[in-house]
Amino acid sequence: MGNTFGNLFRITTFGESHGGGVGVIIDGCPPQLEISPAEIQLELDRRKPGQSKITTPRKEADTCEILSGVFEGKTLGTPIAMMVRNKDTRPQDYDEMAQKYRPSHADATYDAKYGIRNWQGGGRSSARETIGRVAAGAIAKKILRQVANIEIIGYVKRIKDLEAVIDPNTVTLEQVESNIVRCPDSESAERMISLIEQIGRDGNSIGGVVECVARNVPKGLGEPVFDKLEADIAKGVMSLPASKGFEIGSGFGGTLLTGIEHNDEFYIDDSGEIRTVTNRSGGIQGGISNGENIILRVAFKPTATIRKEQKTVTQAGEETVLAAKGRHDPCVLPRAVPMVEAMVALVLCDHLLRHHGQCKLLS
Amino acid sequence: MGNTFGNLFRITTFGESHGGGVGVIIDGCPPQLEISPAEIQLELDRRKPGQSKITTPRKEADTCEILSGVFEGKTLGTPIAMMVRNKDTRPQDYDEMAQKYRPSHADATYDAKYGIRNWQGGGRSSARETIGRVAAGAIAKKILRQVANIEIIGYVKRIKDLEAVIDPNTVTLEQVESNIVRCPDSESAERMISLIEQIGRDGNSIGGVVECVARNVPKGLGEPVFDKLEADIAKGVMSLPASKGFEIGSGFGGTLLTGIEHNDEFYIDDSGEIRTVTNRSGGIQGGISNGENIILRVAFKPTATIRKEQKTVTQAGEETVLAAKGRHDPCVLPRAVPMVEAMVALVLCDHLLRHHGQCKLLS
Amino acid sequence: MGNTFGNLFRITTFGESHGGGVGVIIDGCPPQLEISPAEIQLELDRRKPGQSKITTPRKEADTCEILSGVFEGKTLGTPIAMMVRNKDTRPQDYDEMAQKYRPSHADATYDAKYGIRNWQGGGRSSARETIGRVAAGAIAKKILRQVANIEIIGYVKRIKDLEAVIDPNTVTLEQVESNIVRCPDSESAERMISLIEQIGRDGNSIGGVVECVARNVPKGLGEPVFDKLEADIAKGVMSLPASKGFEIGSGFGGTLLTGIEHNDEFYIDDSGEIRTVTNRSGGIQGGISNGENIILRVAFKPTATIRKEQKTVTQAGEETVLAAKGRHDPCVLPRAVPMVEAMVALVLCDHLLRHHGQCKLLS
Amino acid sequence: MGNTFGNLFRITTFGESHGGGVGVIIDGCPPQLEISPAEIQLELDRRKPGQSKITTPRKEADTCEILSGVFEGKTLGTPIAMMVRNKDTRPQDYDEMAQKYRPSHADATYDAKYGIRNWQGGGRSSARETIGRVAAGAIAKKILRQVANIEIIGYVKRIKDLEAVIDPNTVTLEQVESNIVRCPDSESAERMISLIEQIGRDGNSIGGVVECVARNVPKGLGEPVFDKLEADIAKGVMSLPASKGFEIGSGFGGTLLTGIEHNDEFYIDDSGEIRTVTNRSGGIQGGISNGENIILRVAFKPTATIRKEQKTVTQAGEETVLAAKGRHDPCVLPRAVPMVEAMVALVLCDHLLRHHGQCKLLS
Repeated sequence: MGNTFGNLFRITTFGESHGGGVGVIIDGCPPQLEISPAEIQLELDRRKPGQSKITTPRKEADTCEILSGVFEGKTLGTPIAMMVRNKDTRPQDYDEMAQKYRPSHADATYDAKYGIRNWQGGGRSSARETIGRVAAGAIAKKILRQVANIEIIGYVKRIKDLEAVIDPNTVTLEQVESNIVRCPDSESAERMISLIEQIGRDGNSIGGVVECVARNVPKGLGEPVFDKLEADIAKGVMSLPASKGFEIGSGFGGTLLTGIEHNDEFYIDDSGEIRTVTNRSGGIQGGISNGENIILRVAFKPTATIRKEQKTVTQAGEETVLAAKGRHDPCVLPRAVPMVEAMVALVLCDHLLRHHGQCKLLS
Repeated sequence: MGNTFGNLFRITTFGESHGGGVGVIIDGCPPQLEISPAEIQLELDRRKPGQSKITTPRKEADTCEILSGVFEGKTLGTPIAMMVRNKDTRPQDYDEMAQKYRPSHADATYDAKYGIRNWQGGGRSSARETIGRVAAGAIAKKILRQVANIEIIGYVKRIKDLEAVIDPNTVTLEQVESNIVRCPDSESAERMISLIEQIGRDGNSIGGVVECVARNVPKGLGEPVFDKLEADIAKGVMSLPASKGFEIGSGFGGTLLTGIEHNDEFYIDDSGEIRTVTNRSGGIQGGISNGENIILRVAFKPTATIRKEQKTVTQAGEETVLAAKGRHDPCVLPRAVPMVEAMVALVLCDHLLRHHGQCKLLS
Repeated sequence: MGNTFGNLFRITTFGESHGGGVGVIIDGCPPQLEISPAEIQLELDRRKPGQSKITTPRKEADTCEILSGVFEGKTLGTPIAMMVRNKDTRPQDYDEMAQKYRPSHADATYDAKYGIRNWQGGGRSSARETIGRVAAGAIAKKILRQVANIEIIGYVKRIKDLEAVIDPNTVTLEQVESNIVRCPDSESAERMISLIEQIGRDGNSIGGVVECVARNVPKGLGEPVFDKLEADIAKGVMSLPASKGFEIGSGFGGTLLTGIEHNDEFYIDDSGEIRTVTNRSGGIQGGISNGENIILRVAFKPTATIRKEQKTVTQAGEETVLAAKGRHDPCVLPRAVPMVEAMVALVLCDHLLRHHGQCKLLS
Repeated sequence: MGNTFGNLFRITTFGESHGGGVGVIIDGCPPQLEISPAEIQLELDRRKPGQSKITTPRKEADTCEILSGVFEGKTLGTPIAMMVRNKDTRPQDYDEMAQKYRPSHADATYDAKYGIRNWQGGGRSSARETIGRVAAGAIAKKILRQVANIEIIGYVKRIKDLEAVIDPNTVTLEQVESNIVRCPDSESAERMISLIEQIGRDGNSIGGVVECVARNVPKGLGEPVFDKLEADIAKGVMSLPASKGFEIGSGFGGTLLTGIEHNDEFYIDDSGEIRTVTNRSGGIQGGISNGENIILRVAFKPTATIRKEQKTVTQAGEETVLAAKGRHDPCVLPRAVPMVEAMVALVLCDHLLRHHGQCKLLS
């Protein structure tokens, strides 16, 4: 039952790297929303493999078919099913991995849990699974934009130890998309690209940090005590492949400050709105959005599958070595950016509907 | 609907700081489990206020009444309801806060969301809400112990910049409970206690990092793709008051390594079991437990409510200043330890039942 | 996990007949709703035992304590917990039933499922469990009235073979409450009361049919394909103790008509509204309310616990006989009326919030 | 969010009558279950249109593609996605219905709820939607058979006033499938077929009652108080198109008996098992299966879409008449049999997993 996410705006994904295809069902989408395949494809193209010299060379158009839920260009309010066929599969690349577990990958744990696994291309644990999330996220983003002009922008904040300087309050999508690593600090971006290329040539991999900002989020989203907004976002992004850490606002760094240094003092702005002077809360207080920019960071580990030789074991329980074949990203960060944005969009959209349902009914 | 957590083993909490009481319903608890009020009280006592000179002086026995679901010392399989009455309430301490929003607290956002709030003691956003979690966690821990000898140990890893040296693989509950700050590194503990005392005298506050280890977790828990074990744990701990960040295994630090440095190589141990040489994965790979120790960290910000004067605004929209009254922890960390343990226990217990239901039925 | 009902407006109940008490948590209630203990008590009094000569003589005031979620007479939007203490318990009456299973009761199946059971008063299977439903239903009714003047009226339609003549389109609560059997056809009511009294004197029991109408329900409630409005209502009422059947609109009788006879033709009424000439659909078409009166019927079997001697077996597996002690209703129908109303109100309220969340967000 | 059914064994369906296709995702299926497309097709063939002279002539092979979750003939434990393409669509048949609402169909309510509708072939309200249920039900049936030799057999009990004589305790699938109306009483079957043919020729329609039995269900399934087994079954079958009523065991007829007549006395059978002499409970007591045969009935109204002329209104709010075109079943009962079986199988399978997860963990 772990393949459904969200409550009122709810997605269920399916599919494996090398099966018939991957996809998603969105249930609870508001009706009469104009949506075109092109809008969805735009996001899928940011996620797809083979998009640049620093991503996996697997060639997939990742063309999305809308199977249901949209009629004459508008959502029906009934389930929207979308599917992408797998095309450029090379199961033979995985022959060795049918027996040998890749270190720090999901091969061994899937076998331990289910007693069976689709070893072709990582099966369900492949990042291809995120296609459904990104396609659904495109629709969530459209709703968020339409209802409150909410915009969600992710970008690469750090690759290994190369940290960029970016102002989350002003960064634009155009800046993010201006280079293949999706780091809007162009100077850092160049160095990041070089590093990823070099690491890729070595058959090694690296990780880093994606930062994401959601702007114009109305006050009031999030449902204490368990479905606090940051808790649901944390779950969303920590369910992405390769993520190892999450921060909201000041995060781990904030623990080095004292209360008087850390607290966000209030003031009244020119329009009479209650605002905070600083934003160490990251746009969420007590689990509820406070109208400031929501700012979060996600740590992604270096890609597990590498061409360098490593010690491992076989399914049968024998020690061996493995130098993985297959086509893999030396660094997942550039493609993780749209995935993080999608998860943030899905959480916000779900909470927008929930808040409307509970708190706007009587008012 | 945000007050329910878990699927098969599911809790729902209720109550406010100054209302009739706080409590929890556990639904889905396995029947015939022996459980005594004393076992639950043991955990509640670790959480309760007034337990030491470095916690809030509010005096609450936090005595737990079991209202249903237990008969002649054993669970019935039907809902277990537990309640703690609020006793030492001082609503008058909050008179000022009925009008003035505490910076970085939930006062303003509750008003923004609901248009109403119980301002006495923070209402639902008070840490008293966690009583239900800790009481339920005590039962989850008992099940985990009984089924697989799983033990969950949390401790203070860092207070502000005072970092302790602790081996998660060997740390014991006795070591944790040997001092009032719950840091098993006794030398660091002393310095932490001094710092908290000094900060408290100043009317200021500090935060830090709780680390938690779960040992003897069987392989196979966690449900990709959304209910990955680390995703559900992340949601659980990020729903705790004052938490700002989460890491599993190598976390943010792991992003500084390359793949060959970061990957956990496999080997076969003396008993023929597949193990990993290192544990940067933190006991979870592909969202599923791999049998190694699950190790995670949670960042807690400095307590928002402080006695120092801060700029703020009133509910009516006027700028003012506030020096908060009321009794508050200068540092939430010592009392956050049992809360973190409880959330980890609840997630593991839920996934234990779910895994048993799905994957052990046919085998 | 079977003790939670509803999605956005969600209740979780707890408690056994002879434990510390019974109660409910409502999660998702809209904030700022004025609600008084008296409004809740009004419904509980219609459900409580000992209310007349034809109900069980067990004496319970069933006074409801609101533990949380209401502040200064208004809902907070946070969980509303309500509890009723058990007072007039006589565990000794059940000594025999600790060993002997009552035929057609839940004694044997609870033991089969859980391997343990609270045999005092039927434990969780007691009709006392419905206190939480009725208390929550009172709040749901208030919301429904406030939002759209929706009124829900249940009544006894039939006792054994005594069938009343009642027009669901005009029946009033006053008519229902005008006699102790809750049958607004006063002539039939008298005969029903006599029959129940006689059956009670015999130590036997009888059943019948409750009919319920919901008026002024707006068009659009219900979510195909699984959460169709009639499907959720069916689940709600079939989860009540002793219910054996459910009908919406024409029900089983409708199967005797042909399509041309059964279909509800449309017309435009004076206000320009689309209406149906007949209402064999019972106010729901395709799982969605159509604005006509929702009309449903629930069959309740004769009370299982009777004083007459019956063949049964012991927990230890020996055949024996039982003439049940304890205080029981010879006919559950009069007290089932508020229970049915509560379940209908809970379903409608949940769907009202859900519909508002999904379909009113963009409009 | 109303398109997901079940908890541990959970299905989500999608698709419209004339869109790209219809299908289902099953989440939570136990791994390593052998399943072949042929086993699923077998059930789909019982549901498909054009199967006999008394069903709609629409020609659909309803060939099912398994998109994911099955590898080398076995379930992976990950989501199973299955899809059927729509082939024989005739949107032009619905041109008139794009404007005119069919009486007692879902056209008007979908418009009222969503403000938009796919009018081609009824869109989401078409019975084609049940393809996903039946395909998922085939897998549920396989699990039930494998775990406990559970068998689920549905059949036509009554068409209009033609009632068959069938013993649910001995009826076989072969008997059911021996004629096109799926009534194992061959004499009644003949008369039913004649009646349906005649009604079809008249452009009219009829309904009836499907009875279903589940045999060998182990004791202990069902979760009071809301997820009682009969409550979940009721919801399942009442969510099927055209269903208007539900009965378990004695049902509405049972209300005519007194308690001493109605109660199922217990005895110990030769194998030492606790059994009931009669089975008016229909295999469920207190919401939990008692090991006896589960017997239930579902009322289906006459098909709403008929060729006879009826008064109706247009979307624009004008009164008019309609004699529906399109290809429709004069009686849904023969094809409803596998649908009812599927829903019963899905509920039992979900509860089997849930029971295993909660109650078999510690034992």
